[in-house]
Amino acid sequence: MELLKETLESITGAYEDSLKEARNTWDGLFKLKGGLGSLEEMSIKISGMTGQVENDLNKKGVVVFCADNDIVEEGVSLCPQSLTADLVLSTLKGTSAISVLSRWAKADTFVVDMGMKYDVEHEDLINKKVMRGTKNFINQPAMTKGELIKAIEIGIELGDDLFLNQGYKVLGSGELGMGNTTTSAALFAVLSGLPVRKTCGKGSGLTDEQYENKVATIEKAIENNNPDREDIIDVMSKVGGLDIAGICGLYLSAAKNRRPVVIDGFISSVAALCAIKFDENVKDFLLPSHLSKEPGAKYLMKEIGLKPILDMDMRLGEGVGCPLTFKILDSSQYTLKNMGTFEEWNIDTSMLVDMEGKKY
Amino acid sequence: MELLKETLESITGAYEDSLKEARNTWDGLFKLKGGLGSLEEMSIKISGMTGQVENDLNKKGVVVFCADNDIVEEGVSLCPQSLTADLVLSTLKGTSAISVLSRWAKADTFVVDMGMKYDVEHEDLINKKVMRGTKNFINQPAMTKGELIKAIEIGIELGDDLFLNQGYKVLGSGELGMGNTTTSAALFAVLSGLPVRKTCGKGSGLTDEQYENKVATIEKAIENNNPDREDIIDVMSKVGGLDIAGICGLYLSAAKNRRPVVIDGFISSVAALCAIKFDENVKDFLLPSHLSKEPGAKYLMKEIGLKPILDMDMRLGEGVGCPLTFKILDSSQYTLKNMGTFEEWNIDTSMLVDMEGKKY
Repeated sequence: MELLKETLESITGAYEDSLKEARNTWDGLFKLKGGLGSLEEMSIKISGMTGQVENDLNKKGVVVFCADNDIVEEGVSLCPQSLTADLVLSTLKGTSAISVLSRWAKADTFVVDMGMKYDVEHEDLINKKVMRGTKNFINQPAMTKGELIKAIEIGIELGDDLFLNQGYKVLGSGELGMGNTTTSAALFAVLSGLPVRKTCGKGSGLTDEQYENKVATIEKAIENNNPDREDIIDVMSKVGGLDIAGICGLYLSAAKNRRPVVIDGFISSVAALCAIKFDENVKDFLLPSHLSKEPGAKYLMKEIGLKPILDMDMRLGEGVGCPLTFKILDSSQYTLKNMGTFEEWNIDTSMLVDMEGKKY
Repeated sequence: MELLKETLESITGAYEDSLKEARNTWDGLFKLKGGLGSLEEMSIKISGMTGQVENDLNKKGVVVFCADNDIVEEGVSLCPQSLTADLVLSTLKGTSAISVLSRWAKADTFVVDMGMKYDVEHEDLINKKVMRGTKNFINQPAMTKGELIKAIEIGIELGDDLFLNQGYKVLGSGELGMGNTTTSAALFAVLSGLPVRKTCGKGSGLTDEQYENKVATIEKAIENNNPDREDIIDVMSKVGGLDIAGICGLYLSAAKNRRPVVIDGFISSVAALCAIKFDENVKDFLLPSHLSKEPGAKYLMKEIGLKPILDMDMRLGEGVGCPLTFKILDSSQYTLKNMGTFEEWNIDTSMLVDMEGKKY
């Protein structure tokens, strides 16, 4: 609890002066003001984190949090929990989607066992197993508050180590684990007040009948656990998962260390919502990547108030949106460093107005 | 006319067998079927063009078509036409947004004078000037049909040279020129039947009053020229531009040569619509990049029937969506080559169903 408490106490929002300075720099480049849209906005947002206009983002990493959930006993997922172990091993061996995409983006992949049902033997696996899968939360909490806080603090510790000791400049998050579209749909429903039917999708594939069962299971679990939506620890311990808790911790660490962290899809975005519930300022350190095809994703991004830059109908999890976004962040820094300015080109901007009809 | 005719005669659609083979390959990778969304779809689409499952996309280029339009005499743009020349020179010197982003993506930039008002002196400029800006088309055609066909054929010739002689594997298109959100809004309105107010935005910035004048100008120009929407050559010559004609030609060349070409924003997308009006099969060779912030863009992508992968509120033109998309295409090919398969991992997929509830 000490680490979580210290972390939350040290979080503050964006540096307003740095945001302004960065925007002025972008506005001085020889192009339509704001014409590069999110390419500019992401760079400006990072300036508000670090206090620098230009930022070295070369050392990149994706942290993949792996965990199982015994809620799958209710038939909410068709995949056996042994598949988590296979996917984790595939990631460690460099052949899963996230490990291939990370390698492509020159990012390192870290695989953390937060609570897998099965053990995976591999020298690169970071073993932080809190328990062998969360409990079936149909009529009991998924975990104790102590277990939840432990999981969040694992995420914080990992982030602190990577940012502070290992010099990573930007991190991203991913997850692997059966039943985590169920935990995230439950969390999102409780935290937003939206009906479960809006927050819940078919995850890795379900028939219509199985989908109805998934919705009913989540509704029943929420009713039975009766989480207090004003108490994020209560909500996360009752209907959350260890992967989501770890990701939430990673995001809190990014905010504490004033470094950018990239959100992946639906499950990571629910973790982002949780982190924002701990402290609204965390939002200033989160960079969204893609709009997941999971049907609740559009409501979720609206709830968080962040707009993804990619719209690729992806629904894989693992963190696959992060390497793609890393590359776009690179392009943004490269553009900032290398474009000519209005001043260098001696352009008279006095006749121009911007999109709102205002003078430059 | 001969080159355009030959080109149109040689265009056919995607290879259905190759699409199927590529999809099977993606479906065999150890991941949720279709879970990588557009990353898979773009790769599959390219297979339908080339007939190969895996494709080498290493040699990349962006062709920037530059032209002016005397319709700006009606006050539809605040930017002087001399700015086109400055932006072109900045591009040739490697300091404009498109040249910086292309360099970042290891793509070559080609700058073509299709019809700038002013001359730019630079050894790398490809001089194909058809005329010194199109005519003010408020009550006369922007150009003759002969001039239009010449401009389209310049685009075809450039594409043919780059794909066939110079070995480019993927191209993208961009444009520079004052008044081209006016020409593209006019073209889109005529071709779609949508009201001008839906196809027309504020371009590089206008006050509300100036915007009303832009809409009225386009409405009047369409009324006075009375283009036949069933005759694409008639429409493009009356209310089009030389940049759009060149881009359209490039797209036709891509279809003829069965190579992928990436669309940029609003203006390039209007050129895509024109190319599709010449032959519906061209669509099978077009890869969309980003959803422009130009308000008509969403209607335009719907009209074309293509969904962009980037949603970044960009409205710069120049071709800036292409280098970003090139990188994502790279990631897609890299993923296809390097991911493990269900077979290699000996995974029993018999219990799984896909998103539609169907067995794998």
